[in-house]
Amino acid sequence: MLLCDIGNSSASFLHHNKYFCLSIEKFLEFKNEEKVYYINVNERLKEHLKLKKDFINLEPYFAFDTIYQGLGVDRIAACYTINDGVVIDAGSAITIDVVSNSIHLGGFILPGIANYRKIFSQISPKLRCELNTQISLDAFPQRTMDALSYGVFKGIYLLIKDTMQNKKLYFTGGDGKFLANFFNYAIYDKLLIFRGMKKVIEQNPNLLL
Amino acid sequence: MLLCDIGNSSASFLHHNKYFCLSIEKFLEFKNEEKVYYINVNERLKEHLKLKKDFINLEPYFAFDTIYQGLGVDRIAACYTINDGVVIDAGSAITIDVVSNSIHLGGFILPGIANYRKIFSQISPKLRCELNTQISLDAFPQRTMDALSYGVFKGIYLLIKDTMQNKKLYFTGGDGKFLANFFNYAIYDKLLIFRGMKKVIEQNPNLLL
Repeated sequence: MLLCDIGNSSASFLHHNKYFCLSIEKFLEFKNEEKVYYINVNERLKEHLKLKKDFINLEPYFAFDTIYQGLGVDRIAACYTINDGVVIDAGSAITIDVVSNSIHLGGFILPGIANYRKIFSQISPKLRCELNTQISLDAFPQRTMDALSYGVFKGIYLLIKDTMQNKKLYFTGGDGKFLANFFNYAIYDKLLIFRGMKKVIEQNPNLLL
Repeated sequence: MLLCDIGNSSASFLHHNKYFCLSIEKFLEFKNEEKVYYINVNERLKEHLKLKKDFINLEPYFAFDTIYQGLGVDRIAACYTINDGVVIDAGSAITIDVVSNSIHLGGFILPGIANYRKIFSQISPKLRCELNTQISLDAFPQRTMDALSYGVFKGIYLLIKDTMQNKKLYFTGGDGKFLANFFNYAIYDKLLIFRGMKKVIEQNPNLLL
């Protein structure tokens, strides 16, 4: 089975438990030899995907309990296998969603880590620098690189801590593994979205026909 | 006396207790009829300012106790009249600095509110929207606009709360008044940086000759 999760900057695939990722440019050239079960949040690709042969959009099949208006299907898929917990998908944006008894209680959005760096560099050339991934969150910074890193990482840390209360944390996305390190009990699951996609296919076996 | 605080996107003036602000473009055309006492963090203007007649750079005159490497002179000026407190300057970036017994303990940096909006709109057209300044920080958001607003405002709120401990909060900058509203006991002082500049002139009366 070939699963595909299409975002704003790339498309991730899972093919018989093998993971690979294409830029959107490369994805547009991608030729499939079998059915592709996909979810997509990239507005620019919506029409293109409808015309692709053997591309099956899973979005209509998710049965997800939420009152959130316009929740992205990637966030739904990431939450779909979690009964109780906080789901953090750290990609070009960071989305943080709360699930309790399989009900979505709401969620919020931050810029992704690379995009924090991008906006700092746009504000002033003095703020164009790498972030320090070794930064201590317990001491006030004493140089620009640490000041930016502390603002970003401690901000994300405090928001997640405030949100989690006693819930389990489930991280996914490109920066998920790094962010999970700030917490003692956190699960990093690179394939969380694909697990949600698999679950929806299991719930709708007709899709495999 | 004419004071001028030059940033990356604009230059603020204080002239006999009257405040006005010019875009950097307009500032470049500005003709002074009296001495201008200025501070500047805009790298592109450094050489230009050296050539301007009757422009006096106050930066060398600040005597500020810090081990922070390369602390911007605007942050020094904002902290310069505070003996004890947390100073938040919310402009194109948000800087948060801690002062204790007139010693700078360190500080950190976040994107300014308008720049959060800018980066969201660059991530995805779906994230291009106004922020909700009426957002509740006590309930999980249920739509995109609130999800972005909560991420930004609650993130800033938690960082300041974590930093302040029992210290007083001093807000300045374009978004300072708005952010001060999140706290019960906060001082908003639009002219905080100018007070620091006045203090350094008082400490160096030769500058007035």
